[in-house]
Amino acid sequence: MTRVIKIGGAVVDDEVMLSTVLDRCAMMDRSFVLVHGGGKIATKLARDLGVEQTMIDGRRVTDADTLRIVTMVYGGLINKNIVAKLQARSVQCIGLTGADANLIRSHQRTHQTIDYGFVGDVDTVNIDALTALLGAGFSIVLAPLTHDGNGQLLNTNADTIASKVAIALAVPLLYVFEHHGVLRSVEDPTSVIPVVHVNDIPMLIADGTIVAGMVPKITNAAEAARAGINVLIQHVSALGTEEGTLIKC
Amino acid sequence: MTRVIKIGGAVVDDEVMLSTVLDRCAMMDRSFVLVHGGGKIATKLARDLGVEQTMIDGRRVTDADTLRIVTMVYGGLINKNIVAKLQARSVQCIGLTGADANLIRSHQRTHQTIDYGFVGDVDTVNIDALTALLGAGFSIVLAPLTHDGNGQLLNTNADTIASKVAIALAVPLLYVFEHHGVLRSVEDPTSVIPVVHVNDIPMLIADGTIVAGMVPKITNAAEAARAGINVLIQHVSALGTEEGTLIKC
Repeated sequence: MTRVIKIGGAVVDDEVMLSTVLDRCAMMDRSFVLVHGGGKIATKLARDLGVEQTMIDGRRVTDADTLRIVTMVYGGLINKNIVAKLQARSVQCIGLTGADANLIRSHQRTHQTIDYGFVGDVDTVNIDALTALLGAGFSIVLAPLTHDGNGQLLNTNADTIASKVAIALAVPLLYVFEHHGVLRSVEDPTSVIPVVHVNDIPMLIADGTIVAGMVPKITNAAEAARAGINVLIQHVSALGTEEGTLIKC
Repeated sequence: MTRVIKIGGAVVDDEVMLSTVLDRCAMMDRSFVLVHGGGKIATKLARDLGVEQTMIDGRRVTDADTLRIVTMVYGGLINKNIVAKLQARSVQCIGLTGADANLIRSHQRTHQTIDYGFVGDVDTVNIDALTALLGAGFSIVLAPLTHDGNGQLLNTNADTIASKVAIALAVPLLYVFEHHGVLRSVEDPTSVIPVVHVNDIPMLIADGTIVAGMVPKITNAAEAARAGINVLIQHVSALGTEEGTLIKC
């Protein structure tokens, strides 16, 4: 069965974890969609170029210079290197953004007080194009960029893209990262909560169990679970197994 | 009929010329392959990052830092912006490199005296994958990067890529740029040579009619013409017409 797999920035930055994910992907019986984050490489390039970065609630404010940087890093450097590494594992894949094949349309975020710049909120996922490409045997490596249909690329949260694509395709969604799932205590890797019910998520956020980068992940996971999608949050080394935290509706 | 269109760096750098090309592409009756060069944007980024650039006979020596830069600029920034602009013209296209869909395999160039670094010379073009994507109605925007099949991306001349792809698909090849064709005198835009026979090319290079960036273009054009491909070298504004210089075998 086709799966949507989201790998976070820490996995992209770590050669060993990335290799593990790509090895596991290469063993899958069907074409897949691998959504990657960006993270530190874009931040480093921005620093090297003297482009100041502003983060609000873990979201990058994307001015014109920053959009150029993330288009280069997400759409080019990270995406194409993952494609080359998958091809070396005999995975027939193509590296795309939401602009390619008109896969994901979005609109520039409007906010009463904050100008997020060129950040896109997803409107539509092109199911026909996804199905055509996956059906033709191509796995898709998807960078967290979308477009507005008027020629403008937009920086878009990778967790959200993964959730929207899984919902559109009605296939399982795997958030794969450096932890073994949702942990009761972040210091204790054995404290994995095996099942989180979507109704319990507000409480887990309120009591500080779910924090920081986990919040957007769990929020998008919950949206997918509510749409009937099988969602698993798991460690890189668990990809392909049922280990991790199952998000239940 | 499907066509392979190569646009040079000067077209990529010029908003008006690029718009003209994309407008003409949008009027084509069949899916196409648009191969783009890179040029000044990569050079500027290298300068901003303090990465020294060495050119030998118009070819960029590609060390590891330079490969990162061209992967970002060619594979990301230029490629994805062209895709977004074509999508805004309702062209169903995807932006790829030679690594995507295993489209173009190459090997790292070996040379007795010069170390070109991560520069690839083309070995094979994946006709099946190209045909599947074009046949499914996707036009392809192709960045001048290839891969060696072992996970290594390689910087590859865009004129060569265009020629190899046209030969593989057995379709017409158009080199579209800022001049009206091969000119008898570069100062006189009306001095277009309407037909150049491949056998006359060595003489035209020897007598200085064909110089600088035109040499790799005409060499690749000749290779395609010898393989039975219809090759036209023409101005941006002539795309879609028969105007320009026809390369005959």
